[in-house]
Amino acid sequence: MINVAVFGAGRIGKIHAGNLVLQPGANLKYVSDVNVQAAQELATQHGAQVTDIDSALADPSIGAVLIASSTDTHAELILRAAAAGKAIFCEKPVDLTLERAKACASAVAAAGVTCMIGFQRRFDPTFDALKTRLAAGEIGDPEMLIVTSRDPGAPPVSYIKSSGGIFKDMLIHDFDIFRWILDDEAVSISATGSCLTDPAIADAGDIDCAAVTIRSRRGRLCQINTSRRAAYGYDQRFEVLGSKGMLQAGNHKPTEVVVSSGLSVSGDKPEHFFLERYRAAYAREIAHFFDAVVNKVAVRTTIQDGVKALELAEAATLSWRENRTIELAK
Amino acid sequence: MINVAVFGAGRIGKIHAGNLVLQPGANLKYVSDVNVQAAQELATQHGAQVTDIDSALADPSIGAVLIASSTDTHAELILRAAAAGKAIFCEKPVDLTLERAKACASAVAAAGVTCMIGFQRRFDPTFDALKTRLAAGEIGDPEMLIVTSRDPGAPPVSYIKSSGGIFKDMLIHDFDIFRWILDDEAVSISATGSCLTDPAIADAGDIDCAAVTIRSRRGRLCQINTSRRAAYGYDQRFEVLGSKGMLQAGNHKPTEVVVSSGLSVSGDKPEHFFLERYRAAYAREIAHFFDAVVNKVAVRTTIQDGVKALELAEAATLSWRENRTIELAK
Amino acid sequence: MINVAVFGAGRIGKIHAGNLVLQPGANLKYVSDVNVQAAQELATQHGAQVTDIDSALADPSIGAVLIASSTDTHAELILRAAAAGKAIFCEKPVDLTLERAKACASAVAAAGVTCMIGFQRRFDPTFDALKTRLAAGEIGDPEMLIVTSRDPGAPPVSYIKSSGGIFKDMLIHDFDIFRWILDDEAVSISATGSCLTDPAIADAGDIDCAAVTIRSRRGRLCQINTSRRAAYGYDQRFEVLGSKGMLQAGNHKPTEVVVSSGLSVSGDKPEHFFLERYRAAYAREIAHFFDAVVNKVAVRTTIQDGVKALELAEAATLSWRENRTIELAK
Amino acid sequence: MINVAVFGAGRIGKIHAGNLVLQPGANLKYVSDVNVQAAQELATQHGAQVTDIDSALADPSIGAVLIASSTDTHAELILRAAAAGKAIFCEKPVDLTLERAKACASAVAAAGVTCMIGFQRRFDPTFDALKTRLAAGEIGDPEMLIVTSRDPGAPPVSYIKSSGGIFKDMLIHDFDIFRWILDDEAVSISATGSCLTDPAIADAGDIDCAAVTIRSRRGRLCQINTSRRAAYGYDQRFEVLGSKGMLQAGNHKPTEVVVSSGLSVSGDKPEHFFLERYRAAYAREIAHFFDAVVNKVAVRTTIQDGVKALELAEAATLSWRENRTIELAK
Repeated sequence: MINVAVFGAGRIGKIHAGNLVLQPGANLKYVSDVNVQAAQELATQHGAQVTDIDSALADPSIGAVLIASSTDTHAELILRAAAAGKAIFCEKPVDLTLERAKACASAVAAAGVTCMIGFQRRFDPTFDALKTRLAAGEIGDPEMLIVTSRDPGAPPVSYIKSSGGIFKDMLIHDFDIFRWILDDEAVSISATGSCLTDPAIADAGDIDCAAVTIRSRRGRLCQINTSRRAAYGYDQRFEVLGSKGMLQAGNHKPTEVVVSSGLSVSGDKPEHFFLERYRAAYAREIAHFFDAVVNKVAVRTTIQDGVKALELAEAATLSWRENRTIELAK
Repeated sequence: MINVAVFGAGRIGKIHAGNLVLQPGANLKYVSDVNVQAAQELATQHGAQVTDIDSALADPSIGAVLIASSTDTHAELILRAAAAGKAIFCEKPVDLTLERAKACASAVAAAGVTCMIGFQRRFDPTFDALKTRLAAGEIGDPEMLIVTSRDPGAPPVSYIKSSGGIFKDMLIHDFDIFRWILDDEAVSISATGSCLTDPAIADAGDIDCAAVTIRSRRGRLCQINTSRRAAYGYDQRFEVLGSKGMLQAGNHKPTEVVVSSGLSVSGDKPEHFFLERYRAAYAREIAHFFDAVVNKVAVRTTIQDGVKALELAEAATLSWRENRTIELAK
Repeated sequence: MINVAVFGAGRIGKIHAGNLVLQPGANLKYVSDVNVQAAQELATQHGAQVTDIDSALADPSIGAVLIASSTDTHAELILRAAAAGKAIFCEKPVDLTLERAKACASAVAAAGVTCMIGFQRRFDPTFDALKTRLAAGEIGDPEMLIVTSRDPGAPPVSYIKSSGGIFKDMLIHDFDIFRWILDDEAVSISATGSCLTDPAIADAGDIDCAAVTIRSRRGRLCQINTSRRAAYGYDQRFEVLGSKGMLQAGNHKPTEVVVSSGLSVSGDKPEHFFLERYRAAYAREIAHFFDAVVNKVAVRTTIQDGVKALELAEAATLSWRENRTIELAK
Repeated sequence: MINVAVFGAGRIGKIHAGNLVLQPGANLKYVSDVNVQAAQELATQHGAQVTDIDSALADPSIGAVLIASSTDTHAELILRAAAAGKAIFCEKPVDLTLERAKACASAVAAAGVTCMIGFQRRFDPTFDALKTRLAAGEIGDPEMLIVTSRDPGAPPVSYIKSSGGIFKDMLIHDFDIFRWILDDEAVSISATGSCLTDPAIADAGDIDCAAVTIRSRRGRLCQINTSRRAAYGYDQRFEVLGSKGMLQAGNHKPTEVVVSSGLSVSGDKPEHFFLERYRAAYAREIAHFFDAVVNKVAVRTTIQDGVKALELAEAATLSWRENRTIELAK
């Protein structure tokens, strides 16, 4: 039995807690949140106790922590949990600054603890199956990767202001997809963007659509397009052109109903947003983390992956701001 | 150069004439129609002459005739053209009575002329490709055939009254599909139907939707469903379940545009009706006929096929009227 | 808190137990099975106790029972549970004989207990959404229903021998679909079938593919086709033609990966079999049952539905054996 | 009756000639080609005469010319035909140098003749329908355009050497799509590329895959990805994200056959290459040209469009070579 503490009882914290308690051998012991009522509700639901972070980390019976609190707390909690020798699952991003993220990675390495970053898309059944088939050589060598990553609607401008901008907030997932799918690193990145949906986003110093091109070390090309507003829902697709064919990951739909009317033949829109689209991914992600902790095996999405994705996000931000291609250190 | 006469300058006569003149070595010499103006227009379009049927058949330079006149004239024209030694292409059905159709088949056999019946669906690129792949063993032995065959809307009741009923008018094509796809003959047929869209159709002694089940000699099962009204257009699909898989023939669409809106993800309705859906089939059918005439090879859709399909239509009509399964002579 | 006993710790019993314990307010108290080891394992997994049926039914704290034991035990367990005043969830079929099924229905009615039969397909997200949209009038009045229902492979012949035959074993679900989707009753049924995949099935007195046609009171037509062997997996589709359009329920796939190769553009096969295809349906079904018990509301799939589906299965069997259309009492 | 001369009797010349003769009122009078045998065959097929370009242009009865000769002859033939007062249809590109293309445009303007450039994709039924629906406001204002444009295989390196490079040879069509679909002009363009399929292409100074990003005056973003080798055939898709939804243009397939096997559910690959994919587009393009000549209305793809697309191709080439974003003069 491994005792676990969850830091953060918001939307994503609830999901992780719910998935954790399904793992045989896992015991959700503590829930902590600055919102005490939220913490209490989540604790009650799973028979856990509310406590503060200090106490949770000081409890030697705690083997692992799930960090699902606000982004600005991630780095500090990783550092403290690593110092306390706990296995760590932390939501992306590690931090909004590359420097602090690297410091966390160093601390984790020094402490020798398991640390997994929540790039849940790698655990999506469709994306994961695509990766497996690509790795098995089904389409030969990959040459191009085209990623479409669009949200159904923009978050409040207040959120955008502290989000680190579209590249760190939204595209960090896509940068991880690039590295994971191509099993390659970027040598250059070029980004441009616009604010077309809401002037308040521009006033907040951000953009709402972006187009990114990455060259990899092996000369492969990756294009990412994103928007904060897709009227038809959460659009999460990518395709890989290889020397022998193409693999595409399509959107998931709530049902397989199709209607033929006097106007058209219509199916469902994509799953509305990340909680629906990545439900299975979240479950598989926590199962993987817990399995890694129990069996002391490597996690698939390391803190180093978190650092690398952040590097790309910073470079993309710079490219957009200075309107030039950014070369990345090898 | 082979001179050809077209009997019938209506909708389908125009299509056949237009396809005929594209064949190298074909000369459309005559057009005949009781509607002289229609005949003249079609003749003018292709540099042909208007004449009557007697003259056309009496002209020894005429090598082939295309019979595209009304159904009640088919049998007589086949008999006369066979007697005159002309190669014959005749629209389906051969006749509305089995007896006369068989008489035509005998006359054609006795005369030794080429005679092809217009089961154009066998020349549809999708259906034809499916048949080729089935014959190549791609799904093993066929076991079940499910046919969906629906019109976008009912013809005028005046037409229905003289159409021979839904089984001879609409399903005759599907009965031919059954024989062609399974390469088998029926041993029993069971049909039921309803009139759900317009009471005037019932008053005319007909139905507007029907469900047919056929057993083949080899024990294979075929289900056909039809309706005179599919609000979304012309629905022409079938699927074959085989021992190793399934082959499906889907509808054709005008374009490959897909729209994702706040409501759904929608593509085009099927091609609206037979003139659009089977445009390529009509072209390939006439090319096949002309090639068979020129190269003196067998046609793919013989008058015997026309007789066999009519037998099934008569049996289905009887089954529906008497509410019992009809056994077919072997 | 409602205490529940599960009778049957096999494949489907485990699924129902697993879904039950997710319901807030549900306590899995007992597991019973003739296979004591299976009972013990399931009980241990959920912190329940192994007991015998007598004891479980005699415990006044038990509010509901889940009957997931072998088909031949269903009727007796329903009768006993009804007599004990327990709410009942029972897997389909109620029984293999219509007489006993009706006796169970009477007993349930007399006892006034909740009794739900496991027609889980009504809870499938796709089927359920289709029904909802149909009921909302999206395609006008339904006119035809075409059901495709194929298994990936036949069960052992030993199972087939005691299964009641293909109509009671497989098509009972489809007969329920007919009644549910069209909200109508059958007036006649006609069935035919063949044994094409394995002579041993014929030797066991059964068939492996069947074609059924049902007429409803309102003149609607329903065609069902089935096979015990679809090489590509579990094929579970149906479509409704209505006066204003068509609604189709398609297969579910494990992933949305598509590969384009030098040969074709390919997606996943359907989910392999019922445990995968109807995973969500099983969960929603038990949630519905438990909600009905807690809130004392009507269940969506009553024992009367079980009786009606069995009537159709018996009539279809008779139709197939005697090769004639069977009229059903109104 | 308008007499027409075709310059070039190769693959595309034959297609244009074949489409021209289907236009009522069109007479194919002359065919010219440096390959006399090819010219003779095409002339014979359509009852035309072989002649040289001088004679054709000197014949006052010639109203229009179709220029389908090699790229290096386009500019001169346009200039001469314009000087001779003929209506001109010319295959893309106008020329490989922007300067000469502009000179042609000036000459055409000065002569006041009709001049249409063969951007046949605008006449593709799918692309054209998408544009019409976009223009009708179906998805609101367009914000992003993603274009996928891949050939099934590379041409001979000898061809590549004189092709002007991938941007002028392949992407010129996509640059036209950008301008047409967004009804907007570029303000900046950024291109990168690699040679991954054949080192001989790199030796010839070219690349075989490219990623281009264009910003429009109104801040819209366009990404184009291309490859000279898609193992699954000719991949011609694009999608437009708008404020109210998305419109996608998918590939066309030869048939609508789908096979379900023990491995997958598979449909046809896309049409193999441009002659198949754009068959309907070529026909509609020539019909449009002839109609414009007869009715003296504006053509949809002007020589100015040819110049603009070439400007983008030159800028993209420069961007790729110098690894920087190119700003375009307004």
